[in-house]
Amino acid sequence: MTVLVFLDSAFPDGRIADATQPQLRVTDTGITRGDGIFETMLAVGGTPRKLQAHLARLATSAEALELDVPASEVWERAISTALKQADDDGELVVKLVATRGEEGAGATAWVLVSPLPEGLRGQRLSVLLLDRGYDSTVAQRAPWLLMGAKTLSYAVNMAAVRYARSQGANDVIFTSSDGKVLEGPTSTVLIARVIDGAKHLITPQLESGILPGTSQGALFTAAREAGWELGYGPLVPGDLFSSDGVWLISSVRLLAEVESIDRKPVKVTPELTAELGALVESVS
Amino acid sequence: MTVLVFLDSAFPDGRIADATQPQLRVTDTGITRGDGIFETMLAVGGTPRKLQAHLARLATSAEALELDVPASEVWERAISTALKQADDDGELVVKLVATRGEEGAGATAWVLVSPLPEGLRGQRLSVLLLDRGYDSTVAQRAPWLLMGAKTLSYAVNMAAVRYARSQGANDVIFTSSDGKVLEGPTSTVLIARVIDGAKHLITPQLESGILPGTSQGALFTAAREAGWELGYGPLVPGDLFSSDGVWLISSVRLLAEVESIDRKPVKVTPELTAELGALVESVS
Repeated sequence: MTVLVFLDSAFPDGRIADATQPQLRVTDTGITRGDGIFETMLAVGGTPRKLQAHLARLATSAEALELDVPASEVWERAISTALKQADDDGELVVKLVATRGEEGAGATAWVLVSPLPEGLRGQRLSVLLLDRGYDSTVAQRAPWLLMGAKTLSYAVNMAAVRYARSQGANDVIFTSSDGKVLEGPTSTVLIARVIDGAKHLITPQLESGILPGTSQGALFTAAREAGWELGYGPLVPGDLFSSDGVWLISSVRLLAEVESIDRKPVKVTPELTAELGALVESVS
Repeated sequence: MTVLVFLDSAFPDGRIADATQPQLRVTDTGITRGDGIFETMLAVGGTPRKLQAHLARLATSAEALELDVPASEVWERAISTALKQADDDGELVVKLVATRGEEGAGATAWVLVSPLPEGLRGQRLSVLLLDRGYDSTVAQRAPWLLMGAKTLSYAVNMAAVRYARSQGANDVIFTSSDGKVLEGPTSTVLIARVIDGAKHLITPQLESGILPGTSQGALFTAAREAGWELGYGPLVPGDLFSSDGVWLISSVRLLAEVESIDRKPVKVTPELTAELGALVESVS
């Protein structure tokens, strides 16, 4: 069951609407310009996972776009309304969207709760390394590029995945024009290294202009408590091939093991995947 | 008066709808992913200008996104329906949009005819040069970046204009990370040079990953017939400052004279602006 709740100042807990019916005008700048932001999270047993991390990132995205969005507590009430309405004890996808709305009007904002797509979990990924076109230092000197903001302008992310599929792969790891490992189109890159029995979990550094991963952040906290050493890039493609495991992590698909990159196998360590997978599951 | 016409296989001439009412679902990938394409053109006296050039570019954009859009003649009939319905002998803005639609369903496509915004014409522009982040060779090696396709993912273009305004400017010329002049967020760059009495009109070369400008193309044809020499970059910022005039050209705002770049004046030659402006007006 899909539930749609608009954030609407006339409805403190949100306004329930019918997701199967048209709800947006064609003049909304979310559609005409991809001018808006979003978050996608998982709800389990009626409770959203990592809610505060998602709301914090939404606020950061809004700031990057100078977008005036409702306060966190307004989102929380609308999410609560939507999850109550969905009344499902299993796993649900919770999407938050805010657009700049009509020219000159305020933001259009909603929560959409929908069933978990099938076949998403437990995939082994064959990925292509694709050039994202940007060098890894551009984010800091060019704020107008909105690096690190989760915008609705995802056409390139979608095109990269289509390109990968056309080449027989099923996901992408973007690299910078100066050869650094960045992120997946909808995920964060993780690698593990076991050195003298010590387990190291490493992700590309945020300064390279990638999106701060809420799942990566939560996993890092859990992994540190479980005795892992944590590390932040820069990573280069060679680091992926010399690791003891490579994963893409995201809020709905969770941890997905990479088995090949550019058609070359990478090391797969089932015990590490199992251990990290359990840590991810434990994050609430 | 704003007129909305959806391309709908059940309505050969298009289906008229109410643009003031919601018409799109929140699950359309045009909104969730900015996954779609558009064109904006001017209609004068009920006739769209440069219609075939816009339809050709729409087809090129669709190909880049692997988007299955209606054939040109279907667009033409819908445009005709919308302009008849608008019944306005003045200038109108005609926007064509096609999104990937709902996941797994076909494209959502429409024509929107609306009044010309006020105050658009005759502006003198103060522009900022802003780094687009890409080098000028990336388009050829990375088709997944969709350079040269006019997608709905325009959040960066809008952010760049907001940034320029926050700095007291009113438009932007993007540069590549290797220092080439690219394009405006919604326009093509032109410069003129008068050398020994011969007038040269120059625009950045398409291979740098910019959008092929329909207005620039039409103006070039008209200018050649009027005796101008034509040239294609690469251009660097120094070329803008050493020229006899710099303009941004687009389909609705038409020719707009640049009077300063990064707060430094550039040469303004009123006779050239008048001559080029008349050529632009003559293009049908």
